[in-house]
This record gives sequence, C-alpha cells and structure tokens, in this order.
Amino acid sequence: MTIKAGIIGATGYAGLEIVRLLLGHPEVEIAAVSSVSFTGKALSEVYPAMTGLMDKTLEDDKAVVEKCDVVFASLPHGLSEQIASACHGAGKLFIDMGADFRLESEADYKQWYGGEYADKALHERAVYGLPELCREKIKSARLIANPGCYPTSIALGLAPLLREKLIDPATLIIDAKSGVTGAGRGLSQNTHFPELNESFAPYKIAQHRHTPEIEQTLSHISGQPVTVTFVPHLLPVNRGILSTMYAKAVKGLDAGELEALYRQCYQNEKFVRVLPGGVPASIGQVRYSNYCNISLHTDPRTGRVIVASAIDNMLKGAAGQAVQNMNIACGFAEDTALNLTPPAV
Amino acid sequence: MTIKAGIIGATGYAGLEIVRLLLGHPEVEIAAVSSVSFTGKALSEVYPAMTGLMDKTLEDDKAVVEKCDVVFASLPHGLSEQIASACHGAGKLFIDMGADFRLESEADYKQWYGGEYADKALHERAVYGLPELCREKIKSARLIANPGCYPTSIALGLAPLLREKLIDPATLIIDAKSGVTGAGRGLSQNTHFPELNESFAPYKIAQHRHTPEIEQTLSHISGQPVTVTFVPHLLPVNRGILSTMYAKAVKGLDAGELEALYRQCYQNEKFVRVLPGGVPASIGQVRYSNYCNISLHTDPRTGRVIVASAIDNMLKGAAGQAVQNMNIACGFAEDTALNLTPPAV
Amino acid sequence: MTIKAGIIGATGYAGLEIVRLLLGHPEVEIAAVSSVSFTGKALSEVYPAMTGLMDKTLEDDKAVVEKCDVVFASLPHGLSEQIASACHGAGKLFIDMGADFRLESEADYKQWYGGEYADKALHERAVYGLPELCREKIKSARLIANPGCYPTSIALGLAPLLREKLIDPATLIIDAKSGVTGAGRGLSQNTHFPELNESFAPYKIAQHRHTPEIEQTLSHISGQPVTVTFVPHLLPVNRGILSTMYAKAVKGLDAGELEALYRQCYQNEKFVRVLPGGVPASIGQVRYSNYCNISLHTDPRTGRVIVASAIDNMLKGAAGQAVQNMNIACGFAEDTALNLTPPAV
Amino acid sequence: MTIKAGIIGATGYAGLEIVRLLLGHPEVEIAAVSSVSFTGKALSEVYPAMTGLMDKTLEDDKAVVEKCDVVFASLPHGLSEQIASACHGAGKLFIDMGADFRLESEADYKQWYGGEYADKALHERAVYGLPELCREKIKSARLIANPGCYPTSIALGLAPLLREKLIDPATLIIDAKSGVTGAGRGLSQNTHFPELNESFAPYKIAQHRHTPEIEQTLSHISGQPVTVTFVPHLLPVNRGILSTMYAKAVKGLDAGELEALYRQCYQNEKFVRVLPGGVPASIGQVRYSNYCNISLHTDPRTGRVIVASAIDNMLKGAAGQAVQNMNIACGFAEDTALNLTPPAV
Repeated sequence: MTIKAGIIGATGYAGLEIVRLLLGHPEVEIAAVSSVSFTGKALSEVYPAMTGLMDKTLEDDKAVVEKCDVVFASLPHGLSEQIASACHGAGKLFIDMGADFRLESEADYKQWYGGEYADKALHERAVYGLPELCREKIKSARLIANPGCYPTSIALGLAPLLREKLIDPATLIIDAKSGVTGAGRGLSQNTHFPELNESFAPYKIAQHRHTPEIEQTLSHISGQPVTVTFVPHLLPVNRGILSTMYAKAVKGLDAGELEALYRQCYQNEKFVRVLPGGVPASIGQVRYSNYCNISLHTDPRTGRVIVASAIDNMLKGAAGQAVQNMNIACGFAEDTALNLTPPAV
Repeated sequence: MTIKAGIIGATGYAGLEIVRLLLGHPEVEIAAVSSVSFTGKALSEVYPAMTGLMDKTLEDDKAVVEKCDVVFASLPHGLSEQIASACHGAGKLFIDMGADFRLESEADYKQWYGGEYADKALHERAVYGLPELCREKIKSARLIANPGCYPTSIALGLAPLLREKLIDPATLIIDAKSGVTGAGRGLSQNTHFPELNESFAPYKIAQHRHTPEIEQTLSHISGQPVTVTFVPHLLPVNRGILSTMYAKAVKGLDAGELEALYRQCYQNEKFVRVLPGGVPASIGQVRYSNYCNISLHTDPRTGRVIVASAIDNMLKGAAGQAVQNMNIACGFAEDTALNLTPPAV
Repeated sequence: MTIKAGIIGATGYAGLEIVRLLLGHPEVEIAAVSSVSFTGKALSEVYPAMTGLMDKTLEDDKAVVEKCDVVFASLPHGLSEQIASACHGAGKLFIDMGADFRLESEADYKQWYGGEYADKALHERAVYGLPELCREKIKSARLIANPGCYPTSIALGLAPLLREKLIDPATLIIDAKSGVTGAGRGLSQNTHFPELNESFAPYKIAQHRHTPEIEQTLSHISGQPVTVTFVPHLLPVNRGILSTMYAKAVKGLDAGELEALYRQCYQNEKFVRVLPGGVPASIGQVRYSNYCNISLHTDPRTGRVIVASAIDNMLKGAAGQAVQNMNIACGFAEDTALNLTPPAV
Repeated sequence: MTIKAGIIGATGYAGLEIVRLLLGHPEVEIAAVSSVSFTGKALSEVYPAMTGLMDKTLEDDKAVVEKCDVVFASLPHGLSEQIASACHGAGKLFIDMGADFRLESEADYKQWYGGEYADKALHERAVYGLPELCREKIKSARLIANPGCYPTSIALGLAPLLREKLIDPATLIIDAKSGVTGAGRGLSQNTHFPELNESFAPYKIAQHRHTPEIEQTLSHISGQPVTVTFVPHLLPVNRGILSTMYAKAVKGLDAGELEALYRQCYQNEKFVRVLPGGVPASIGQVRYSNYCNISLHTDPRTGRVIVASAIDNMLKGAAGQAVQNMNIACGFAEDTALNLTPPAV
C-alpha cells in the first residue's frame, strides 16, 4: 500500500524536482500538486518535459493538505507556518523546503528574515532534516525543516573536523559557489541568460540568510558558538554547489589522516563520498545525484586545512534530501528513489 | 535470476552511459567492463562520479565476451565484427553501438566508412535496433545494430509522414544540431572548451556518415529510394539532438491534422511524445531521458511541412536505445531501467 | 569637429552596443542618451561595466533629439515614427534600429506587425541600411532603417546566388540560429538562464516577423517575388547568428566555383569574408566583430547548394551596421570605429 | 614612424591576443609571428577568425628576434631565457609572458618550477611588469616579466590594504576562479567541453605555481614576508578571473572607508576601477577589456575585510598588460590600443 504525497509549490524548481523523484518512488503516489501562479493548468502545460508523466491539474494548497499523508511545501519564507499547523492538526507529515522552521532562535529569524514565530510550540516540534547529523530525531518527526542547500554542503564538509576539534572555528572562512537553479524559477536581471552566462560574481557578501543556519549547525557539532565568514557566488551552470572551506588546524595533520578520519565518520553514510587523495571534489561528480562528495587538503605552509564539498543543490541540497527525510520518517529504505548514478557528462 | 552484461569500451561516453543505466536495472548484473586505454584501472578512477557505484576493474574485451550473456560494444568503426563473431559463436546477445552493422549495403559502407564486410553472413543476421520501427525483428535478434543518434531522431520524426506518403521525399532537407557528447571523449580542437563555448557551426556539410543510414531507414519506410540533404551542427551543450526537417507537402495539411496522425501512429510508443499544437520540440524537454519529443508545423505560404524532433543523444540516441533493445531481445519489460523523468532544469 | 550623436533606448542591448562603439569613434561625441525605464540614473549605474566610461545621466527621448545631429533609436516597434518625424523636421540624421521603416509594403507591416503607417511620405524617404547592397542610397539618406539581424545574415549569404540566378528561389529554406542577446534585455521564461542553458529549440516556426523583410530584400536582388521558409532557433550563447540556407541549383556548380563567384562579388566589401574551401562559417569566427563570414557548399547527390553565413547579431546584425550606416551617411570612412578583430577565444 | 613588434608563440591564446591588440595599435607594425606547431602556415589558417586580418606566415623564433624591435614571447616555462638573451644582446625590448623572469628568488623558481637560472645577471635586469605598482622601473626596462593572471588580480586587489597595514597578512586567504582560456590552447580532459561545462572544481589546491609570485609581490607591498593560502578554481567560462580575498582587519573599518582609500590610491590609474558601495566586482564587468574592477566589503561579525577583484585573464591578466608594458617602455601613451569598453553582454 502506497502513501499519498502532495507538493505545494510544485511549479517551482524544488517542488518540480520532488515530483520528479516521487514519480520513481514505489511506495508513494502523488495525490495532489499545487501552484499559486498556475492553478487549474496541468503541470505538463507549464513544463512540457513532464508531458505524459505528470499531467495532473494544479490545485490549491488546501487540496494538497486534504488529500495527502505527506505534504512537501516549497514556498517563499513566511508562508509555511499555517500549512504546517494544518498538517500538524491533521496528523500529517509536513516537510518544509523553506527557512521557516530551520532556525531554533526566533531572534535569528527576526534578524535575518524579518518575521516572527506565531506558533512557538509548533517551531519546537520541528526537526532539522539533515539525516547524516540528525537521523534519530527525523525518524519520529512529523514536521521536518529541510536544510538549505549551502548549509548542507557546508555541514557535511566540516562535521568531522569540528566534532574532533581539529580546527579553530574562529578561523573558518567559507567561499561557496552555486548553480543558478538555487535562485529559483522567478525571473531577475541576474539570472537573465546573457547577463549570467560568461560571467561570475559573489553576491550578498557576508550577508546571506543561510549564515545563521550554517552557524547553528556548526555550533551544535562543535559544542560551542561558531561564527563564520560566508560568501556565496553565482555560477553560470544549472546545478550544483561547491563550497571551499578554510580553517587553521589545531595541530599538524596531513591530508591522508584527514581522509581516514572522514572515511570513518561517514562509513555508514551512503550519500557521502570521501574522495581519495588528491582528487578534488567537483560539481561534475555529483550533479543529478543525491551524493555529497568531499575532498580533504592541507596547506602545510600556513597550517590550514582546506575542505571542498560538492552537492547537487536541487537534490542533496533540496528535493533529494526532502525525499530522504520522508523515507526516514516513513520507515522506507532511506535511499528509495534516490539511487541516482551521476552522469559523468 | 539476473543476466550478466558487459560493456566493451566502458570508458567512452556511450559505454559509460550503458553502465549507468544498467546499475539501475533489476534484471541485470554488470559482470565485466573493458577499456583499451585504461585496462587495469578501476572505472571510478577514470570517472570519480562513479566512486562507490562502479569500482570494478577494467579488463580487456575478451574477458567481457567470456563472462557475459549480453555484450555491448562501443568501439570505433571497423572493430566490432570480430567481437560480434565471437559472441555469435558463443550464443551471446551482441549489441553494437557503432556503425559496423547498421548498413545493409556493403557498397554504402565502403563508400562512407571505407571498410569491407569480412563475414557477410554475420551482417545478414544483424537487426537494426530502432524498436519503434523494427520491434518484431529485435525480439529474436542476437546481433543488434544500435542506430546512430541523428538517424534515430530523424526516423522517428519522419516515419508517419513518409509511411502515409504525405510529403515528397525528394524535397527533404534535414538540419540537425547535436550536443557535444556525440563527439565522444576523445580530445579535439573543435571540442576544446574555449573554442566550442559561445560558438556554433555546421560540420561535415552534406558529407556526414550518418547520411546513408538515414536514407536506408527512410527508404524502407517510404517504400522507395530516398535521398536527403543532411547538415549537422555542433551545439555548445552536453547532451541532446534537435533535428529540424523540411519537405513539400503532397497535399494541404494543417498542423492539427499532422498532430492527430502522429498521435495515432505513436499511441503505443511510450518513448515517443507528440507535443500539443504550438509547443516546439526542445532539447530541454528530453535531456537525461529516453524520450523522443516531436512537434509538427506547417508553412502554408510555401506548402511545406516542418517537423522538429528532439532526443537525448546519449540515451534514446545511444545507451538508452541499446538498453531498450536488450530489454526487448531478453524479454524484459521494454522500459526497464528507462523510466527516466527528464529534469526540467 | 565632431558630430553629436544620441541614443534613444540606450539601456537596451542594441542601444548600449551603439554607445560602446561610439565611445571609440574619433568623429563622434555622445551628446545624450535616453531610457524610459531608467531616466535620471547614470548609464553606468544600470551597467557597472560602463563605470568611468559612460556615466552620463539618462534623459528622455526629446532631449536626445534636441541635443544631437545623429539620433539612433532602439525601441519596440511602433514608437519610432514620431521620433523620425521630429528628426526629419529638424534636419537630423535618424537611424532606426527597429522594424518600423524596414518594410516598403504597408500591407506587410500590417500583417506581420499589426500597425499602420501614419505618415506615408516619411516612410518613402526611408532607406534600407544594408550597405553592401544599398550603399549609394545610404550616402544621401537622412532616415535609415537598420536591417534586422536575421535578414542581414541571410541577404549577404544569398545575394550573389540570387543575382546570378544560380538557384531556384522557390526552393529556398533558411534554418537560422541566434544567440540570446537578440531577444533583448527584457526578462522572459525562455531566456531565464536555467531554461535556456543546455537546451535548444526552434521558435516562431515559419511565423517570425523577419520573414517579410527577408523576402523583400531577396525579391529585390533576384528581380522576382521570393517566398521562403524561415525557421529561427534560440542558441544558448550570448552573441551571433548562423544561418544555414538551402536551395536547388539551377545548374551543376562546385563549391570552388561558388567561392570564386562570392569572392568577386564581395571583393570590395571589407566586412564580408568568404571562407576558403571546406572551412564552414562559424559564430566563433565573427563574434565581437562587424564581419559576416560566408562559406559555400554543395550537395551533388541532391543538386543543392548550401550556404552558411555567420555574423555577430549585436554588431553586423545591429549596432555595428548602424554605425556603418552613420559613417556612410556622414561621409566618414566606412569602417571607422568598426575595425574590431574578433577574438578567437 | 612605427616600431616593429613580433610575437613568439603567436598561435597560443595569449600570443594571439597580443596579435589582436597590436592590429589596433597605431604605433606598431607586426613584423613577424612564430609558432612551433604551425611554422609555415598562415596564422589565419590556424584561426579562421583572423582571415584577412593577419594572414602572415608563421616563422620560427629566430626570425622574430631578427626582424623586430619588440619581442613578445608566450612560451612554456624554461624556454624564454635564451630568447631574452638574444634580445638583450641585440638591444631589443623583450616582454616575457611566462614565468621565467617573474621570481626574484632562484630558490623559489627551483622549488615551484623545477628549473635553474642559467644567466643570473640577465635575471637581475628583469623588471616585473605590473604598471600600477612598478611603473617607474618599467619605463627604462628592456626585459619585462609580464605578471601572471592570478597575481595581477590579487596584487591590485590587496595593495592598498597591505600598504596601509590595515589587515593582518598572516590571515590572508585567496579563493580565485578563472575562465578556461587561462589553461591555454593545449588539449586536456579537464578542458574538454563536456567535462568542464556544467561543472566546477578547485585544482592545485594550495599548490599552484602562482603562489610564490603572489607572495613576492605582497611581501614587497607590505614590507614584510607574506605567506598566503591560495586556491584556484576552474570556471566554465572562456575569460575572466574573480579573486575573493579574506583577511582580518587590524582595526574596525567600514566598507565606505575602504572604498575611499582605494579611490585615492587608484585615482590616477585608468585601468583600475573601484566599484561604488554594494556592487560586487564581476567578470561580466571587465571581460574583453583591460580593466581591473575591485569591490570592498566587510564582515563586521567576524572583523574581516573581503575584497573581490575581477579582470579579463587574457587582457589585464596577459596580453593587455603586456601591451601596456610595451607602451610604457616605448614611451607611447599607456592606454594606446587598450581603450576597450567591456561589452555588457
């Protein structure tokens, strides 16, 4: 017997990617999809790529909540709380793709997003859905805050170093580069083809909203408050995030020792791949898959450790992780519908 | 019980794509992979994207033939005959990704490829593996010539028109555009990033080796000899072929009538999608999937019909079609391992 | 003494490109620039690439007409007539980048653009600004209709064949591919980076508005009415148009003879380059320059001639040709500010 | 009267770019070009983009030295010394595009490049050609070491901060991203279109050969030994470098103060543009021009300063700077042939 899943915001890139994954999920039936902009149209009218594969008519969010056991919401921030509340009341699993339930501190949310937590008890029920770090809690969660794309690549890349206290967190600098699907389907001059193509630049320098989420996770891992410099850049590619992370080593370490440590930490994690010595992590190794590839490097001249971490921002950084979370919370095999071999070209 | 499959030339792009598909095939176990350039290395050493997914050591072609029930060969032309012969002798299914068994006429092969057919009887056993046109023969085939990428997109795009004799074949002009993976893994100035990126040009104008294969298929469909003008172009994208095809209509036809005809012709063909009126076929609708998308258009001012046909050159144009052929010849469900929803972005 | 030039619509891509060219023109001073969307801002605020090079404040179109001797207008169709009229009254040279004055037949304009000619006398004064075909008239013109990008590449590519009556115009098929700057600065889903990148498709199949302009020019050249099938495609590159053109040869011709004919026709034309045997025209050979590269090919099997013609859509297809027209009409050396060597990478 | 210039290695990307610039230089005649791989061919045979613009036959390096007053050499490291020596003996100006004369310390050269200085006196005559930092010495130089692309973007981006001792050099981290022309015309798997396109990765992590050159320049500026962590990445774009640089501020500084400082430092430098508050430096702002765009940012939460610096790697990072150096050493206006307005798209 399959469960019924629905996607609110199914015409956004992340929502659409969830649809795509669930079409290949043997335990799930997509019972409803919704969209604010295209209600009443078939999903395949909006995306001809889906012709014959998902011709269901787009409804409104209420219909999704009503018809489904699992609800994914991919919405602008500030809009998920009500839906989460409705799902909670009806005993449904709610997986939020946005930022509304990621931050434990309402003060942080206010500062970086400008909103408030109307139902604080609801926020306390939310579980941060990074399976490699919080799997146990996800198993019994009914309200899951799916992590941001940058924070996912960063937390997986730094967790073993911070847990083992091998770097000085105060020296952490994170230079991240993202493919453009991260900016979504909405049009903007920055993502207009001729202006992004053949170009490259940083944006929201040291001011990106993922900063408090990154720091929250890194602080939990290291057991002390961590403040980082985080600078994202926009890449002229569709998919992928590559985060290059720098920190002072607490003691001398060679890349081989680091690799061994990471292998051990992630030995039971299917979706984390530690690369063998010398091969740098690359977006090309993970696009269209749910893997996070990590490579470890040292700069003995300066005593720094350098970690490169690559994910597909739409999969491990969004829809793939959401399905992984659903699998865990529903008791399915964690990799169901996620056994995606990355095409090498 | 699974069958054992092997890939000769597994480090080429088409070979690698077969590996990728077969990793998701529940009835198949990859028993051996070979490579001339990388024998002795693990496949994942050559392609880090495969780390943990296909770490098998690359052997030589003999090992593949010996260990496998189904042998795929992705080789430069002229090298498949011997392997086909060995497979035939041992009763194995052989699927050739190259051109060696595609042309019925040895004269054509000589003219366009410069070689000869050493074992003519073997060539007569070969079945042309375009399932939508030759499914019955494929069912009992043991030697399958997997079609070229351009010919696949063209034959599917023109078959209904030619079969119904709605266009004058003497007026056929085919302007095709291919992504660069079609040129393979081998390095060349034309596919060096800075020289292809932001550029676009035709190549082998009216001289491409796929011409006789295209004409052979179109002649069979129309029941008369067809000669076409075929001009391929190289696109700065990784995957996909879009063929734009022009011909004089024999009688007045509107796009709606054409669409209805095509829908009827392809109503049982899962991998052919006829687009609804007005939506042009696009590479973006089919990449990373086994679909062929077709759109029908007319130019009433000149009395011409225009067909646009899009495929992923690596899947329906190569590896996907090869697996589809294997599925048919082995009695598996034809879409096994091929239920790939194209990502819209 | 320099002349004063102004650009109406200077924040569009074509307008901006005129600014860029005129900054390098020794006989011209940019006296005013205008924009509807950004009046009051500095041009360099809108385009940081212009910082320090063009910081002039954007005014309205009246200011441009008032302050300048030469007025370039890059506007949506239907808006140029009034400005042309004002320039005419004040004795100023007006160069229209849009379609308002390109079509001699008002009926064609009505059919394809949906508007009317309010001041028919003004339209009769307009000169079609394709220097290689109409240079004499341009010399004394005061109202110049700058050709469309597709028509420029097509007319230059076909002129010698049509003039010498070497092809049957009734068989002409034009398959053209354009970079995305041709679609302008305005945002649309089609030109949103993730949807165009790694994709490719035709658009406005046999319905593009450049069709009557193409036919008008080809009819003039060949001395008889010419109707063509014209299908444009959108390329995931910033700049360039490659038109591939097909027609039946009236008599047998080899590529060498064609090349010789074209060389002779264009021997005095600096901006047309006929490529030596075998080298196909390519966007990469002409981008960021005012050249049109042409290659000649034959398909002896079908008796067809194939011409490939490449330009930079923003230069020879728009701003470069506009400056070339200004140079001619003002008596400057025709190549002033246009000696742009295309970067090979 | 013009001077005669020659380019050794004219078929490499940097050499070709010098040719392109010198074709627009009113004081220079290109008297000879050479190539090891294509001797005897016309340059335009190798690069059809140059047809009619540079059809000169490629000779050998001796011919270039013999015929020219100024010799540019764009060669693999280790090959320039002999040519420099010949030029020195003949009293010619030699501008080396490679690394052979950039490092003052032979020990550094040995460690990072593996070679030795055969003629130490010659090396002492070499002047490092970064005009904004070393203009006076360049004026009388006869042997100029043209800087590397990364070091140029980095030195210009950090000079004011280091000179004013506003950052702690020990905390400097440089995360740089380069377009692929920096890797040259030679073929490699990394720069094969399908493997670089839609991908992104770091390379030579903390081991790139530009590191000692960067440190040499930064040490000179700051008056103390500087050691940095430098990690380059390969971007899927043709041109441009964007360096993002991080350091601890010595005292509290806001972005406005930094901007004012940089404006003052570079007020007389035509080719350095300090961006107004909030606008990040971008490759799109400088490609196809000789400008270096710099933006200043702070991270008050961590006390760090962040500088983004963008150049076109082929122009300010190679050929443009080489011509700028020639202009200075020959007494021409420094911007001759370099007044290139970057196209905004």
